[in-house]
This record gives sequence, structure tokens and C-alpha cells, in this order.
Amino acid sequence: MPTYKAPVEDVMFLLNDVFQYDKYSNLPGFADAPSDVVEAILGEAAKVAEELLQPLNQIGDSQGCTRHADCSVTTPKGFKEAYHSYREGGWMGLSFDPEFGGQGLPYTIGALVNEFFASANMAFTMYPGLTMGACAALAEHGSDEQKATYLPKMIAGEWTGTMNLTEPHCGTDLGLLKTKAVPNADGSYALSGQKIFISAGEHDMSDNIIHLVIARIEGAPAGVKGISLFVVPKFIVNADGSVGARNTVTCGSIEHKMGIHGNSTCVMNYDGAKGWLVGEAGKGLNAMFVMMNEARLGVAVQGLAQSEVAYQNAVNYAKDRLQGRSLSGAKEPTKPADPIIVHPDVRRNLMEIRAFNEAARALVVWSALKSDVAHRSGDDAKAIQLADDLLGLMTPVLKGVLTDKGFDNAVKAQQMYGGHGYIGEWGMEQFVRDARIAMIYEGANGIQALDLVGRKLPKDGGRALMAFFGEITAFLKENEANEAMKPYTAPLAKGFGHLQQGSMWFMQNAMGKPDNAGAGSYDYMHMFGLVAFGFMWGQMAKAALDKKAADPSKAAQMDAKLLTGKFFMERMMPETGAHLARISTGSDTIMAMPADMF
Amino acid sequence: MPTYKAPVEDVMFLLNDVFQYDKYSNLPGFADAPSDVVEAILGEAAKVAEELLQPLNQIGDSQGCTRHADCSVTTPKGFKEAYHSYREGGWMGLSFDPEFGGQGLPYTIGALVNEFFASANMAFTMYPGLTMGACAALAEHGSDEQKATYLPKMIAGEWTGTMNLTEPHCGTDLGLLKTKAVPNADGSYALSGQKIFISAGEHDMSDNIIHLVIARIEGAPAGVKGISLFVVPKFIVNADGSVGARNTVTCGSIEHKMGIHGNSTCVMNYDGAKGWLVGEAGKGLNAMFVMMNEARLGVAVQGLAQSEVAYQNAVNYAKDRLQGRSLSGAKEPTKPADPIIVHPDVRRNLMEIRAFNEAARALVVWSALKSDVAHRSGDDAKAIQLADDLLGLMTPVLKGVLTDKGFDNAVKAQQMYGGHGYIGEWGMEQFVRDARIAMIYEGANGIQALDLVGRKLPKDGGRALMAFFGEITAFLKENEANEAMKPYTAPLAKGFGHLQQGSMWFMQNAMGKPDNAGAGSYDYMHMFGLVAFGFMWGQMAKAALDKKAADPSKAAQMDAKLLTGKFFMERMMPETGAHLARISTGSDTIMAMPADMF
Repeated sequence: MPTYKAPVEDVMFLLNDVFQYDKYSNLPGFADAPSDVVEAILGEAAKVAEELLQPLNQIGDSQGCTRHADCSVTTPKGFKEAYHSYREGGWMGLSFDPEFGGQGLPYTIGALVNEFFASANMAFTMYPGLTMGACAALAEHGSDEQKATYLPKMIAGEWTGTMNLTEPHCGTDLGLLKTKAVPNADGSYALSGQKIFISAGEHDMSDNIIHLVIARIEGAPAGVKGISLFVVPKFIVNADGSVGARNTVTCGSIEHKMGIHGNSTCVMNYDGAKGWLVGEAGKGLNAMFVMMNEARLGVAVQGLAQSEVAYQNAVNYAKDRLQGRSLSGAKEPTKPADPIIVHPDVRRNLMEIRAFNEAARALVVWSALKSDVAHRSGDDAKAIQLADDLLGLMTPVLKGVLTDKGFDNAVKAQQMYGGHGYIGEWGMEQFVRDARIAMIYEGANGIQALDLVGRKLPKDGGRALMAFFGEITAFLKENEANEAMKPYTAPLAKGFGHLQQGSMWFMQNAMGKPDNAGAGSYDYMHMFGLVAFGFMWGQMAKAALDKKAADPSKAAQMDAKLLTGKFFMERMMPETGAHLARISTGSDTIMAMPADMF
Repeated sequence: MPTYKAPVEDVMFLLNDVFQYDKYSNLPGFADAPSDVVEAILGEAAKVAEELLQPLNQIGDSQGCTRHADCSVTTPKGFKEAYHSYREGGWMGLSFDPEFGGQGLPYTIGALVNEFFASANMAFTMYPGLTMGACAALAEHGSDEQKATYLPKMIAGEWTGTMNLTEPHCGTDLGLLKTKAVPNADGSYALSGQKIFISAGEHDMSDNIIHLVIARIEGAPAGVKGISLFVVPKFIVNADGSVGARNTVTCGSIEHKMGIHGNSTCVMNYDGAKGWLVGEAGKGLNAMFVMMNEARLGVAVQGLAQSEVAYQNAVNYAKDRLQGRSLSGAKEPTKPADPIIVHPDVRRNLMEIRAFNEAARALVVWSALKSDVAHRSGDDAKAIQLADDLLGLMTPVLKGVLTDKGFDNAVKAQQMYGGHGYIGEWGMEQFVRDARIAMIYEGANGIQALDLVGRKLPKDGGRALMAFFGEITAFLKENEANEAMKPYTAPLAKGFGHLQQGSMWFMQNAMGKPDNAGAGSYDYMHMFGLVAFGFMWGQMAKAALDKKAADPSKAAQMDAKLLTGKFFMERMMPETGAHLARISTGSDTIMAMPADMF
């Protein structure tokens, strides 16, 4: 049976030692949660993750969700009760606006708690996750009446939310969508069409389900400009806020998925369902993108979360499993064999996962802090712009790289188990199957790479990229005289050089020939991720050296960080060279192949 | 619904144009199957794969195998009938010794046919696959009586076979095994113990199941030297060859696996089961390794097979799926969107898979031909030694690299489908789940890497490695003046240089410090695979250039090969640099981490 322990100590190291969390205390919400309060909250979240959610993870996978003849859906045994505990604990609105019942804590804390929950039970965590996405879109684009009607109930967890974008013939290219909205006399609309892959589309855990749906108002132009956003509740809400008539939106079937079986992923049929326009007509995609950005960071965290829980179990197994002897002589001669953690190749695998996990978590904190600054800095336009630029730049990198590597790492951790890794009971193959979806949904990772290269790089004349490069340059300069930092700064400088060359190559070769950008986009995204991780490792190494000097009792933990960072620099950073080589070959060979010769 | 078309034309290009199959006609079996006969056989195999096996692949996955209260097992609907057709077609003994009813055709042809069958239905193909492994061990180590008793029935497909190695507490380190064999008065043994992960351990497709089991004879020494091999039939065979009493070996349960559900993977309980020693007592592991080598090549082919079928489906989808527009302007303006194959990143993914598939298939043919030479060259000791050296060297590379990349490619192909790739009905996620096991069984890939670096490289003073390097050197020299070959030879020479440096690094740094070999073994294996693929692409490019010149009607196909090879050289070969960088960092950082800090 797999286990999970939330990495509270690592998180506190990031907040206190690496990112000086206290310096944000001027922002709303931060003052309410100084470092010691955060630690207490994380401790409570750890308990929920470890004791409430993790024990349901395998049950959720093996039972899945069941749709009944009346179109209702039952979630796996224990999910409903766990959800009630979860919402009573106030976890839903942790970092949401207090005006609607949230606690207003930093988004950063919410993202960290989300990692714990997603490690413990990804399928479960999607129910509140989708609700938060829907709340974000309603808060940003809904009318005051809509906000008052839906947000308090959703933040309280009494109602959940969904996002309805994909149709059978369109996912990436939503301009092709067919779901139509016909105006009713009362100002509402009648929505008809079919949506697929709707996470938490129908279930038995809440009193109402608030669907956010994109559709085309009858007569609206083709393409993305004809798309509007609607709120379509499962039960129409009465004027007094109580739940009224059943709307004509139903679950047609539950998708047979590779993983996240505990989440009810539905085909939703809209049969003249009553909905209300959210925001302006024709601006539906913009409104939806509010959810998407938040969702992309959430999905990135899922990648990290699966990598973390898979790592922990692989470590436990590697310490327990006796098999063979160390190449340098028996390490535990009194036992029939050594634990497999003595083998360099087992350690290499574990360290690759760990070096990713710690850097990825740091990058999540770095990015989430930008989100907090961007949303809570009042009228400090300069700070907001900078934070917004950096967050926008990093979002596709986070989504694409954390989910790709998170999946790869789940596979690596599974491999440590040998044949047992392939067997359901051990839990490792579930991590692989669950992690797989994160590379696909909320914009497949190829789309993230295109977003990075095609939109985020050139935006505002490359302002965001220059800001990010400026931060790395400053960090390298600050530490150039520090000998102890050389194992970190030298490889970072080299990888950063490759990233600069790759960026330059696009500027020179992709402006007039966009296929050159497309052909190198995926490599660029991963090269960017490596350099961002290297930047995180540089900062973590600096903090670890400082902490070790200040507090010798922490030497063992800090040495482990320094070794892991060194491993990253020696073994993972060199990949930037291969990425650059691939980018620089351009698109000629790729595009020369006639389609019918594939 | 996924589809499959066997790549007969590509195979014939390899046999005729790249490897000059006709020059082997002096070897037994080859003369009976000249090129045109081979093409006819492959055509028939293609039909079996496409029409008989592929339609059962999804059914096998969704139904799985069922164990009943009496310990019997039912295979998925249609498997039994398909198996009967399969054995009646004579596919089982295709390349087996005619003395026992085989057709004696080249092993190379068997390996190619095996790819088709494994692409069509991997779970099904394991039933005959395991039988062939068991036959190989019996043929090599069994007594004349054992051969006469079991082989004709097994080759005819009336009886199937299994390999019983793993126990709950030992897989890689078989020296720890506990299954014991107690001598009976009649010269047989009574075997007791539990074996796990036994593919095809119990099923309803054949009249008898012949288990090859390793166990420790009572009183035998601990460790691998105490291991002996036994043949334990499900039904004892009477003196007249008919099937007699039920033996006390039963299926305790069917493993709940991530994939290959159509294969009955069993926990087998031996409860004083009657068995007979195969070969010498205490030499059981050697005898088992005869099966393992054959099995490793077979598993490598499974990796390729899943990559190939996943590729074909991804290509079909990429041509059909309309979504978005080409970055360089609409390619099919009359349609609502362009097919996604216009996008460079989609093409990059497809070409990565294809460049692997063609090189991997070439390497399978190259290796299988070595196997044929090694086993059929009579008293030509020099030819046998060279072929045996090269095959032994390449076996861990084939197993490790083809299965790792085969899995990665199944994941890439799945990704092309977006959300549909995560849904069972589309079939892509099954390829991923099925492909996953190939990285684990028959020696996990980390073990393959250790076998390569720790055993195969130093063996006979590096003789095999020098022979392989000699072949590449000769090829590069032969083509050094050929300008048209430059895009292939220059990158190959560079990658080859990295491989030589990596090999040298081990010689200088791992002799006295074996952890340095362990820490770099996995990177070395993959670097080796890239260079071997590059060598294959060099030869394919040469053959394609020649063929294009000789037969202009083939220009389009040959250009596709040349482009794919160029893609390999530009985009995949550069990875050798990163592998070398990682190898050269050694084991210090990896080994410095205290086990309790993981």
C-alpha cells in the first residue's frame, strides 16, 4: 500500500529561507498569515492529505464513478464523506476573497496546500479544483448578482463548479464549437449541444453543480469571436437562493479513462438548458482564460504532486527491498542481500526525481508569489506589471514542464519496483496513469510550448523575457565571487547561455518563418524549464549554505539539498545543449516530408 | 478504433537493400526462404496480424482473464479460437528445428513476424512467445527424452510453455529463491513454493502447459549455485505421450496489472508438484539464461511493435483531425480547419517516433542475422564468435533502449490525440499500458544497462566492443568521400566519438571504482543505442540513395527515408553529448547522499 507524507519542512525552507516570505507582509492576506501561522496551516493540510484523502486514493481508482439510468452519478465509497469533511475544514476558500466567504490567505499557500492534496488523491482534489476555477471566472467576469448568487455557496463547498469547453470535434481549436445558445424571453438563454471530458460534471457530493459553458449565441459569427460564456446551474437557483427546478443538463456517460477514475469525467448533454450570459457576448474565450491560467498552474502542481508521492514510495521501497549486493562490496552483510538503494543507478533515478521535485516546488512558490503580487499590490502598477509579466511567461513552462517531468518521474519511480510496479496493489502504476492526464488537459503541452514561443516571448517586445533574464543575470553577478556557489553558478551560467542563444535564434529565424518557431517550441519550453530550475537550485543552494553556516544543527538536511542541487547541475542541466542543437536545426527537414509519406 | 498495417515493404527494404539478405543463402534455412518466399510469408503474417489478432486487442484489454474457483482460467473472448488458427497456420515453429516439427526458417524472419503479431496484439502474442522461450531452453539443455516428450507438442502449439523465475521476495536476485525440490524415489522431484508474474501460467487455450521452473534442490548451497531447472507439466505426460494425471501446480490468482490484460499473468503455487531436472543440478540459472537471451530480443521487439502501431494510429489521426491553422497560412482553406499534421510540433513528434521505428527495426534485423549466423554457421568458428560477440553486446542495448523508447513513443503518439488519447475507446492508452511492462520484465532496464557495462564491455578484453567499433569505423571510411552521405556520416562520427570517449572513461575510471560504472550505465546504454541507430541510419541512407538512383519510381519512398534519417541525425543524435557529460561526472555526488536523507 502506498503512503504519503506532506513535505512541510521543505516548504517552510522555501518560504522562509529561499524566498523570504516575510518581506511580502505588506500585501493583503500575508499579514494574517505570518510564517508560524502558515506552518500551522500546512500542518493541518498535511493531516487532511495523509489521513483523509490518501487512504481513498486506491479505492477511488479501483471503484471509479458509476452513472445510473437516471443520469445521476455515484462517486467512489468514502468520497462524499471526505468531501464534507474537506469543505467543513474551510479548505475550499483558503485564498479566496473574504467578501464571498473565503479566508483571503495568500494564493501561494493555496498552491502549496493543493500540492499536498493532489499528492494524496489527485482525482478527489479535482472536484474542489474545478470549483475554484469556476469561482475565479465568475469573480472576474460575473455580474454582481451572479457573484452573490453563486460564489458564497461555491466557496462554502455546498455547490461545486465545472468548466465546459471541449466538444467531440474540437478541443484546442475552440473556434469550431457547435453548442448554441438561443435567447429566451426572460433574458436567459437555452443552451443545446454536447460537451465532453467534463471533470466533476455530475456527482453526488454537493447540492448543486454550477457549469460554466462556452457556446455560440444564435447568429454570432463563426470562430472564436462568436463564443460567449454562460453559467448553467444543474438546479436553477430560486430568488431566495434556494435550489429550485432541475435544469436540462445531464450526464450522458462517464468517460472510460486511463486514470483519475475517482473523478467523474462526463459527457454532458445540454438540451435547451437554461443559462445566463457571463460577461460580454463574444468575449467568452477571454473569460474562460481566467480560469485556464489558474487551472494551468493547478495542473502543473498536479505533475509535481504525482512526482513527489511516487518518489516517496520509491525511496521507501529502495530502502526495504533486499536484492543483490553493492558493486563496492556488501553494505549489509548480515542480511541476505543489500537494500537496492546501495546501487548507483537506483540512486540516480531517485535523485533525478528529487532534484526535479525540489526545483519544481520552488518554481511553483516563485510563480505563486508573482500571482499574489500581481493581484494584491493595489496601485503599484510597476510591481503588478513585472509580476504579471513573469507569471504569464512562466505559466506555459510550469504547465508543460512540470507535467511532462512529473509523468516521467512517476514512470521512473514505478520502475524502481520492478514487476511489482506493474501491479495495481502497489499503487505505483496508478500514479503513472493519473499523472498522464496532466500533460493533456488545460491545453496539451504542445500548445503550452506554442503559447510560450509564439505569444509570451514576443509579447510587449520581449519585456517579460528580458525581466526574467535580468533576474538570472543579477543572481549570477551577486554570487560571482562566491567560491562555494561555483558548482551551481557555473552550470547555470552555461545553461542560461544556451537559453539566450535559443531565444536569439528564434528572433533571427522565426519572425519571417513561423514554422521555425513551431519546430523548436517544445525543446525551447524544456530548455526554459531547465534554466528556471537551475535558477531555483542556485537560490536554494545559496540559502542552504547560509542556513548551514547559521545553524549547524541543520547541516545534514542542508547538505542533502546541496548534493541534490549539485546532481541537478551535473546531470540534468547539460541537456540544454541538446535542446539548443535541436532548435537550431529549424523546420526544413520536418516540413519537407509530404503528409502522405508519414 | 485503432488500426494496424504490417510494414512489409519497409521490412523488405531492410532485407534486400540494406542487409543483402541473399548473401546469407549458404546458411541452413535461408536457402528454403529466398527473398520472394520471405515476402510471401510476411504477407501471410500481415494478414494474421491485421485480420485475426488486431481485432482482439481491445477486447483482450477490456475483458482480461478470469480465474475460477477451481483454479482454471478463461482467456478473453476470441483468444482461444484465434490461438487455434494461429497454431494451425504453423506460426509457432516458424524458425524452430525441423527435427521437432519446426519449419527451420531463419530466426530473422521469426523476429520480424513477431513484430507484426506484437503490434497487433501484444498480450496474445505472449502465449506463443513464452512457449518458444521454453522450447529454446529444452532444446539446449533437455535430455533426448525430454525433447521428444515435449518439443513436438509445443512446436505444434498443442501445449504451451512458461518460465517460472520470480518469487515475491526476489526477481533480479534469483539467488534468494526459496522454491524447493525434494527428490522422489522415481528420479523425479517434488517442487514446493510460490512463483509470481508467470505469464501464460494458466489458461484455456492448450491441452497442457509445460512449466520451466527454477528451484533449489534440498540441501543445495545458498545463492545462484544452488539453483536447478525443472520441467513441471500441468498434466503429467504418459509414456505414450498422452496427457495423464493433473499435477499439483495451480494458479493461485491472476495479477491485477496495468496492461497486457489479455495475458494470463499468474501467481503459481507448487504444492509438491512433480518435476524433472533439466540439465545439470546447480546449473539452472545458466539454462534459464538461454531462454532469457531469446526472450530479451523478443521483448525488445515488443517495444518496437507498440511504437509502430501507436505511430500508425497517430499519423491517421493527425491527417484526419481538423484543428487550427498552419502557422504559415491555411493549407486546406475550404475546410473549417487544417489537419493537425500541418503543425511542425506534431510532425516533430511523429518523426521522432518514425526515426526510432525504422532504426530499431533495422537493428533488430542486424541482430537477428547475427543470431542466425551464430547458430547456423556449422564449424566456421570465427564467424560464429564474431556474430555471438556482437549479438551478446547488442542484446542489453536492444532490450533496454527499444523498450524505453517504445514506451516513450507510445506516450508521444497518445499525446497527438489530445483528450481522446486518455480515453479507452481510442486505443492509444492501451498501447502505453501494454508497452510499459517491456521496460520491466526479462530483466529491468537498469539491469540491462549493468549487464552492458559490467559484463559485456569488459568480456574477453573488450573484444565485442572493438568488433562493433570496427564495423562503424569501416562504414565511415567507406563513405568518407561520398558528399551525399555527409548529413549522415558527420553526425554519426560525432556521436560515435562520444561513445568512444564514454567507453574510455569507464576503462579509466570504473575498473577500481565500480560505482562509476553503475552511475553511468544507463546513460551509456542509451548513448550506445543512439550510435547503433545512427549506424543503422547510415546504412539505410546509403541503400536509399543507391535505390533512388537505380529505380526512380521509388524516389518518393526513398526521399522519405532520407528525410527521416536526416531528422534522426539533426535531432536525436545530439543527445549523445548530454549522455557523455552525465557519464563523466561519475558517482561521487550520487553516492555521497546518506541513505536516510533520501
